[in-house]
Amino acid sequence: MSHATRAALSRRHHAIRSAMADRRLDALVVTSLPNIAYLTNFTGSSAIVVLTREQLYFVTDFRYVTVMSEAADSPTGSPGLELVVVEGSYEATLARLLDTLPGVAGIESRHLTVGQYDWLLRTLAPVAGAIRGLTLTEGIVERERARKDDGEIATLREAARMLSAVARDVFSAVRRGRSERELAFAIDSRIRQAGFEGSAFDTIVASGPNAALPHARPSGRILSEGDLLVLDFGGVYASYCVDLTRTVSVGKASSRARDVHAAVLDARNQALAAAVPSASRFDIDAAARQTLTRHGLGEAFGHGTGHGLGLEVHEDPKISRRRADVDAADERIEPGMVFTIEPGAYLPGWGGVRIEDDVLITDTGAELLTDVTTELLEI
Amino acid sequence: MSHATRAALSRRHHAIRSAMADRRLDALVVTSLPNIAYLTNFTGSSAIVVLTREQLYFVTDFRYVTVMSEAADSPTGSPGLELVVVEGSYEATLARLLDTLPGVAGIESRHLTVGQYDWLLRTLAPVAGAIRGLTLTEGIVERERARKDDGEIATLREAARMLSAVARDVFSAVRRGRSERELAFAIDSRIRQAGFEGSAFDTIVASGPNAALPHARPSGRILSEGDLLVLDFGGVYASYCVDLTRTVSVGKASSRARDVHAAVLDARNQALAAAVPSASRFDIDAAARQTLTRHGLGEAFGHGTGHGLGLEVHEDPKISRRRADVDAADERIEPGMVFTIEPGAYLPGWGGVRIEDDVLITDTGAELLTDVTTELLEI
Repeated sequence: MSHATRAALSRRHHAIRSAMADRRLDALVVTSLPNIAYLTNFTGSSAIVVLTREQLYFVTDFRYVTVMSEAADSPTGSPGLELVVVEGSYEATLARLLDTLPGVAGIESRHLTVGQYDWLLRTLAPVAGAIRGLTLTEGIVERERARKDDGEIATLREAARMLSAVARDVFSAVRRGRSERELAFAIDSRIRQAGFEGSAFDTIVASGPNAALPHARPSGRILSEGDLLVLDFGGVYASYCVDLTRTVSVGKASSRARDVHAAVLDARNQALAAAVPSASRFDIDAAARQTLTRHGLGEAFGHGTGHGLGLEVHEDPKISRRRADVDAADERIEPGMVFTIEPGAYLPGWGGVRIEDDVLITDTGAELLTDVTTELLEI
Repeated sequence: MSHATRAALSRRHHAIRSAMADRRLDALVVTSLPNIAYLTNFTGSSAIVVLTREQLYFVTDFRYVTVMSEAADSPTGSPGLELVVVEGSYEATLARLLDTLPGVAGIESRHLTVGQYDWLLRTLAPVAGAIRGLTLTEGIVERERARKDDGEIATLREAARMLSAVARDVFSAVRRGRSERELAFAIDSRIRQAGFEGSAFDTIVASGPNAALPHARPSGRILSEGDLLVLDFGGVYASYCVDLTRTVSVGKASSRARDVHAAVLDARNQALAAAVPSASRFDIDAAARQTLTRHGLGEAFGHGTGHGLGLEVHEDPKISRRRADVDAADERIEPGMVFTIEPGAYLPGWGGVRIEDDVLITDTGAELLTDVTTELLEI
């Protein structure tokens, strides 16, 4: 279970109900597990929430009935929660529940498969008084999740502090003769020992030419003199994710390595300076991208500049290029948002550099949550 | 990357193309990542495959271009693969590709969101000569994946052998005064040290009353005399998942603990005896369920008896009750299938027992892949 207070959950329900009213929805069917965790603190693997104007129907199966019943009266229990135990399948239980509700229900279009939707449409009883229809919605809960509340900010601040301490400790585990895989294991162990529930994603340890792959998997490659080494890892603390990358040199860095590192650091600093309330998320990305282009490394930076952090390790806001075909709105950065800034440069056959920090947008600017040297360490 | 040979991949493509022909599909859009891994050995986080009668279009972004180009000529490279690099969004790149293909394309209805499908339908150019339509399909690749080939069987056999060794070693880490969380960490460390890529799911360590929760999360609870202790953990080896549960007693077991354990073991043995080629998956479940009912524990067993193992830790076949509302076919068990058998009994407030093994269906019966004592150990 996650740890939001009952009052915090109540505020979240209120915000979502207000968004539902704007869209003339009588109910919202929430099928995304992180969205369900946000609304109820539930962190199991199977549930559906149907939020109506007055109730929060919590559909789950046998495995979670005891834990949900016990949570009901706790200080982190969800207000207005009515437990619906699955009989048969989740889909059929949901269809029966929807048949008892009036009006129009929104479906999370990113979180229901076309197969499930198709089945629901065919199954819902076409009776008067029952739900009149389903309509597709997008990102209603995600939009609310993007602005963290005080409890979430305290959790993320603490998690980033812990992860920074892990990073400093990890530097001491880097040495010639170790394999990438051994080092990744050492990092994961330190993440657990530091008090995290676990790693937030598969730890990346990419050395020498492997560092040219932004999403390399740790291999048996042995660290050797002159390697650039990308270390990218994250932790989950009280259900919230933080994420950090540093690139270090194994032994003395070449002048080219110093140049590429300096360029990526410049891009990180420019993006950080652009991360202020009301900025466009696309402009923060452009700040990093234009800086790398100035350094002749525009082509070497193919991914986005950052991503939101929270109950998921990749969530809104996405700090990326505008994609003409799908990104309509120029979404603005707001206070309470927490995201990574992580430009990189990847040169096939040679290696790569990435530097990643986590920032919180405040009323006046940005607060750096991670705190690890950005110098190119020679270890 | 996963490790199927080029010849094995070729056989898989052939089998899927044959299923496509049966359904009069000219193309199949594969959006499930495990299905993509099965067809190409790709184990990254973003890709779409479009399999046609002659080609395998592999749509991926910048981050994976280098690794896919390098894999192309390797002994585990996919035959007939044509790389399509994402420009803009995945959806738009897919739509442009589909616009160049003739005929009818199948969509994996379990693995495309209704939002993506809706967008595709609106975007596909309504031009002559281009794809004439999309149609929903279900489980085409999953059905093939359920019957493992020789390479997969060798991998799963080795993985289960390794996990069994971990289990025996884990028993020595159980002691009074340790917390569930500490023990879970010790288990995860052993899984990595044994040579697994990582844990297959969040390790369950549930002691005393917590053992009544089938999906408990490890807590700070300290193990103490007389606790029943459910240990459920799995590993990923060469991309394949194995899964094992044993329940032990901390110190001397009560006579009730012995009785419940004996009943669950009886259910496990009955299900194992029912696991033969041509058996109905529902009948294997019934063998376990009826046994527990005979012991007065029918109500205490709320989950399914087992699940398939492979590239995912939960895949087909599901060994479960027939759900009248959604399960149409009485699917038969076939040689080459690998799945868990894991009955349990959960008594709220008191505790619980689960015993889980992994079996391979052979031409004549079942081979137990896991090999750990099923006695109730008092540790």
